[in-house]
Amino acid sequence: MRNAPPDPELLALNTATVREKWTLREIIEGCARHRYRGIAPSRERLVQTGAKEAAKAVRGSGLAVTALHGGGRFPASERKARQAAIDDTRRAIDDAAVLEARCLVLAEGTLPEGSKDLPGAREMVRDGIGEVLDHARGAGVSLAIEPQHPAYCAGQGCVNTLAQALDLCDELDRGGAALGVTVDVYHVWWDPQLRAQIERAGEKRLRAFQISDWLRTSRDIFADRGMMGDGVIDLPLVRSWMEEAGYRGFHEVEILSAGNWWRRDPDEVLATCRVRHQTVC
Amino acid sequence: MRNAPPDPELLALNTATVREKWTLREIIEGCARHRYRGIAPSRERLVQTGAKEAAKAVRGSGLAVTALHGGGRFPASERKARQAAIDDTRRAIDDAAVLEARCLVLAEGTLPEGSKDLPGAREMVRDGIGEVLDHARGAGVSLAIEPQHPAYCAGQGCVNTLAQALDLCDELDRGGAALGVTVDVYHVWWDPQLRAQIERAGEKRLRAFQISDWLRTSRDIFADRGMMGDGVIDLPLVRSWMEEAGYRGFHEVEILSAGNWWRRDPDEVLATCRVRHQTVC
Repeated sequence: MRNAPPDPELLALNTATVREKWTLREIIEGCARHRYRGIAPSRERLVQTGAKEAAKAVRGSGLAVTALHGGGRFPASERKARQAAIDDTRRAIDDAAVLEARCLVLAEGTLPEGSKDLPGAREMVRDGIGEVLDHARGAGVSLAIEPQHPAYCAGQGCVNTLAQALDLCDELDRGGAALGVTVDVYHVWWDPQLRAQIERAGEKRLRAFQISDWLRTSRDIFADRGMMGDGVIDLPLVRSWMEEAGYRGFHEVEILSAGNWWRRDPDEVLATCRVRHQTVC
Repeated sequence: MRNAPPDPELLALNTATVREKWTLREIIEGCARHRYRGIAPSRERLVQTGAKEAAKAVRGSGLAVTALHGGGRFPASERKARQAAIDDTRRAIDDAAVLEARCLVLAEGTLPEGSKDLPGAREMVRDGIGEVLDHARGAGVSLAIEPQHPAYCAGQGCVNTLAQALDLCDELDRGGAALGVTVDVYHVWWDPQLRAQIERAGEKRLRAFQISDWLRTSRDIFADRGMMGDGVIDLPLVRSWMEEAGYRGFHEVEILSAGNWWRRDPDEVLATCRVRHQTVC
């Protein structure tokens, strides 16, 4: 038995999906044209306009900012670099506040160059989040940890399962609601504990839900994500687990695809996402 | 504090490491020449000579067969194909007995073509192992489940963590010793639960230990493994966990490397592995 198609109003776009062809302003206009209700920019995108201008443009188009992606990257060999990451994350929190983003999704970071100390890198992530949490509370910004696919452990992020992310939430924010998690199906679809951990997270900790697909034939782990429906992920099943756990937020499309979708006309990409959202998600 | 270098007598070679240049017979001769004490062939290699001839050649060179890799691949859409995989695995068990292999490492398999039913594929793996376990007990062959890196979940294997493999052992072989696990650092190095699950496995379930490295810059998840020492895995740390858990078996080198090590002279590869085993493992 399959669940009903998702509410079309919940479709949102992560700017990375069309990052090769459109500026932030063009993405905002594109989202409005295709009747998307939410947008999730990466922080690098804000450099083009600044957070205030971006906030004005987004609000003018009637879009919600479902998430701002950025900050974090806490592990570093030198204390000075670790402090710089903390300071930068505080600025990212301020940007998220200006944008009225539903959450700031942290890029946690991983092993510093030359290091093999994975437990140590994970401690630096924990300590880094701990250092910015009060600033987030003060700014009224909710933080989200996004577990990264284990294939990203060496290069991008060393929080690699939902269980690990939720353990961090419990340790740093017990009983609180300042810290939560992002469920990106590309990163977590393989996890035998996925259902149990989504349930454990519950409405309180589930901050964002990202969709795309894992292509069966994919070899490139960084920029060969599939359009929803073209891969092996049972998207309606994962969505049903999110909904059972109380998640009512947006479904944010994030497709990093150097060989295919990044090359296409972004209007075609946005139209395809809308159709697939209704037919296979 | 680092542990002492490993016992050089424990070095073993998985035939896949030099599969592009040497036949099985050449690999056996090469292992003897480089004073390796153990060899782990993949079952496809036996086709060249048959299991009996291979067993004779291996024994004649004084090598132990640390593992035979093959069998399994249980999930399939049709009942007939599932039965064929079970029958084939029973023959692989017989081959392992002829070779006096310390264990048969199963390739568990994953989603059948066109399927997105990951929980269903996992059930087929469980059922398949259940079907061959008595045959393994009768043949005196120990089976090992090898958790596959989550990036292999769509294409190769749907048992993706040591915890999941050990849950299968407990379910199918409670209190027994017919079923165990293989720890391949390439597949499991990222796992936040690695130490705890190695400890949980203990001497009873730890059947094989495979070494290579994860290259920081790797994009190709299938054939870009690194030589020990060239990547980010803390090999002495993982080995210390294996030893603390009671593992006293071989250290089997398995490097799948289309762009680098497969292209080199296998004598250079074997010599390099021997040096690295002593210096960085």
